[in-house]
Amino acid sequence: MKRILGIDPGLLHTGWAIIDVAGSNRTYVASGVILPPTKIPFPERLAFIFNNLTELIEKFQPNECGIEVIFVNKNAKTTLLLGQARASAITAVAVKNIPVFEYEPNKVKKALTSMGHADKEQIYKMLSILLPAAKPKTPDESDAIAIALTHANTSRYI
Amino acid sequence: MKRILGIDPGLLHTGWAIIDVAGSNRTYVASGVILPPTKIPFPERLAFIFNNLTELIEKFQPNECGIEVIFVNKNAKTTLLLGQARASAITAVAVKNIPVFEYEPNKVKKALTSMGHADKEQIYKMLSILLPAAKPKTPDESDAIAIALTHANTSRYI
Repeated sequence: MKRILGIDPGLLHTGWAIIDVAGSNRTYVASGVILPPTKIPFPERLAFIFNNLTELIEKFQPNECGIEVIFVNKNAKTTLLLGQARASAITAVAVKNIPVFEYEPNKVKKALTSMGHADKEQIYKMLSILLPAAKPKTPDESDAIAIALTHANTSRYI
Repeated sequence: MKRILGIDPGLLHTGWAIIDVAGSNRTYVASGVILPPTKIPFPERLAFIFNNLTELIEKFQPNECGIEVIFVNKNAKTTLLLGQARASAITAVAVKNIPVFEYEPNKVKKALTSMGHADKEQIYKMLSILLPAAKPKTPDESDAIAIALTHANTSRYI
């Protein structure tokens, strides 16, 4: 059995999900969203993400982590902010010596729906079939579950 | 007396410096460069920067930290990598509840040489006058000292 942490990082909301994988079985354990207070300075936001993920890692003891690759898009400034939130999340995992695996967004979509360009609604529908116990309340939570499942389905180690 | 940590972040080398400030006196304490092993994966590089800075913070107990603002330049991909290294460094400081102050590169140059476009050689020369005990061996170390001095010279708190 392996326990996987999926992360959908962001400065405003960082989705997270924990699933257990044993052979072809996937079991939903928990998921949620880390929401730093809106008015704290940037360095404190990074610390908030790090501290909350550290607590979750200590509570759930995941073996591996999946996170989305980040690409430079048209808004380089937004990408840079997102990249920094993502780095804070990756650091929280990596300092615990948990391997971090990076997945391209299209690979996540394809791993779940066989379509590289599935929309959020299709991803959500597929999640409700694959993990009916998971009832994500936000897109960030849903994306974190999707990334954890993608790692479960593509990793050679499981 | 305040102890200031200056950081010049980077995925390849992260310069750091510690100076003490009391009134108009600035005392060089220590400086160096964090060099993650060249062949470790990206998440482990972030953890390496975080862990090394954490050790330095626990050793030197700085009260405040100065770091350069990052701007999106022509190479957005490089900026994104740098941004993530920087976030790991900021996180290490912020989780210790040490305030982080961000300075624009031109402000650092101007605070030390009165010129917003001073080159590295001019910065280095000024440092050798202001803090003769500091003998930085690399530009990253020199920049970290410059940032710590900038914070000392511009902060209202000292």
